[in-house]
Amino acid sequence: MTAALPTLTPVILSGGSGTRLWPMSRPELPKQFLALTGEETMLRLTLSRTIGMADAAAPVIVASGAHADLVEKYLAGDGQIILEPVGRNTAPAIALAALSMADPTGALLVMPSDHIIADIAAFHRAVEKALPLVADSWLMTLGIQPDGPETGYGYIALGETMGEGAQAVERFVEKPDRARAEAMIAAGDHVWNAGIFLFRADTYLAALGAFRPDMLAAAKAAIAKGSRDGRRILPDAEAFAACPSDSIDYAVMEHSDRVGCVPVDMGWSDVGSWDTLHDIAVKDGDGNVADARATLIDSRNCLVRSDGPHISLVGVEDLIVVATGRDVLVVPRGNSQLVKKAAEAADKRPSDG
Amino acid sequence: MTAALPTLTPVILSGGSGTRLWPMSRPELPKQFLALTGEETMLRLTLSRTIGMADAAAPVIVASGAHADLVEKYLAGDGQIILEPVGRNTAPAIALAALSMADPTGALLVMPSDHIIADIAAFHRAVEKALPLVADSWLMTLGIQPDGPETGYGYIALGETMGEGAQAVERFVEKPDRARAEAMIAAGDHVWNAGIFLFRADTYLAALGAFRPDMLAAAKAAIAKGSRDGRRILPDAEAFAACPSDSIDYAVMEHSDRVGCVPVDMGWSDVGSWDTLHDIAVKDGDGNVADARATLIDSRNCLVRSDGPHISLVGVEDLIVVATGRDVLVVPRGNSQLVKKAAEAADKRPSDG
Repeated sequence: MTAALPTLTPVILSGGSGTRLWPMSRPELPKQFLALTGEETMLRLTLSRTIGMADAAAPVIVASGAHADLVEKYLAGDGQIILEPVGRNTAPAIALAALSMADPTGALLVMPSDHIIADIAAFHRAVEKALPLVADSWLMTLGIQPDGPETGYGYIALGETMGEGAQAVERFVEKPDRARAEAMIAAGDHVWNAGIFLFRADTYLAALGAFRPDMLAAAKAAIAKGSRDGRRILPDAEAFAACPSDSIDYAVMEHSDRVGCVPVDMGWSDVGSWDTLHDIAVKDGDGNVADARATLIDSRNCLVRSDGPHISLVGVEDLIVVATGRDVLVVPRGNSQLVKKAAEAADKRPSDG
Repeated sequence: MTAALPTLTPVILSGGSGTRLWPMSRPELPKQFLALTGEETMLRLTLSRTIGMADAAAPVIVASGAHADLVEKYLAGDGQIILEPVGRNTAPAIALAALSMADPTGALLVMPSDHIIADIAAFHRAVEKALPLVADSWLMTLGIQPDGPETGYGYIALGETMGEGAQAVERFVEKPDRARAEAMIAAGDHVWNAGIFLFRADTYLAALGAFRPDMLAAAKAAIAKGSRDGRRILPDAEAFAACPSDSIDYAVMEHSDRVGCVPVDMGWSDVGSWDTLHDIAVKDGDGNVADARATLIDSRNCLVRSDGPHISLVGVEDLIVVATGRDVLVVPRGNSQLVKKAAEAADKRPSDG
């Protein structure tokens, strides 16, 4: 590490409201606010992950205005909260964070708020490897060493080596079909796109200005016309609503020829479904993952989560049962992509009273 | 019908506290108090079944003292409630009813409180066929025409014809194994024992005195030392506790050589399990039986009952899901005999708070 390296501000994107972990994850309490993998919420785990990182500044959380009070309590020390009046996907969210940096040459470490990383030391080492390239105005990303031909993730094709542990990015690959995923795994030159990015604020804003000037202009207007309230940054609602919606991948990363990647094996998971949660959890001797509010009799390879009723499973295999509030979900393991359908139906149904 | 036929007092046995329909059926609210098959509770359906029956007197309900207030509200008109201080099975319960009859030559129509009969006219016709033999001091029973080699019911072996629609009983057969059940069905001379009995009070008490004088003496003492409170009959607790416990089948019917049976096909079911409830219910096009608090997506041949949370089933087959109060049960169809295990585990577990 040299003195020339920029200070790193963790920017945690908390705007998601996924339905794949319904009924626990809901628009009013999406999964980053849930303790899905243990005692701590995903958002707190994400914040904790930056502790002990070299040269890290106080974090910035970009969240939905609807979650302002929820997010506020996570920032025990310093830090800022950018409250989006509406969701406009990641590219504008990151622009708001970059525009709010006191030092435009400071670096952002952009992270989703709802993933887990088991090996935090490996994460820190990967970040350190990326920093010299960040200082040199590269758009950097961490790429996850794949452990199988997953079709649920985007991939990153790696090119030439650019220094210790980093490679140039050839291109971003959207979620592939099975054959394409297997080909990429066989070739050995692809990693998973985990949505973790590192760059200087000025690097990102210059790239956004080059590829999506409309987006940059809208984000600038939202900040200029917006207000501050203590550590809350409140972009102007009308100006930000006028901003086009797109991901950083589509809006910026795919277009730039100055994108690098640090491949890393750090026990990463996006906790994208109840199936994933069963996969990554510690299981009992019968392959079950169950909390205290469950009784499993003659049952195997099940996941049971409840913060409400007591769940009794008898003679059941490969089943996911999740109970919270007024809802109980029952879905076979391996089918949790169907959970979205249940969430949509729940949205439409009248109250049970 | 002739003038010599006795008046018929429906005697409804409501002492059961089965766990096979847990979690809805519980000791404090057993299945006779639940509307498992539709709008009405099983007990009310049982009472309604005696309406329009020729020469029927006001009913007598024999119930646990713990359910006194529950039962009271079912007797809108005339009738009596015998409140057992403890459960002593059916032979003593029926003795209490027989001893409480104003006319000892009056007849009892003894019925469980938790079965269903779809064809009430057939039921009434069977009762009418039995009455002449009841008047002639026979112990009569209705036998269900079996529709398969069920191993969950007791059987009755039929002998010679004794008049229109009635046959002498050769013997009672306990719940058989599969081979024995198939042999009885093949022979065609066996019916299911549904626990429905008809006899004069004096006939039953004489038989009980002959085969179980200890039981008769205890029941007499319980009534003699007991009290009345309006239409409640309160047998003496200590005296009734001293009564041996046994079923009418074991204590009386198996020993008497003056037992007859009217075979009948009347859409009977003991609603003995969640599987049975699925079998007898009207199903939708996917074979599902579900109430308003359920959403079934890509799911087939399931039973969902809830009086609490909303249950969402996605991509599930042949599953029973029942939610009530603080409990949710999940069990595969065809395995509902395992429900008892869940009920036992629920009894033992500490409160979830």
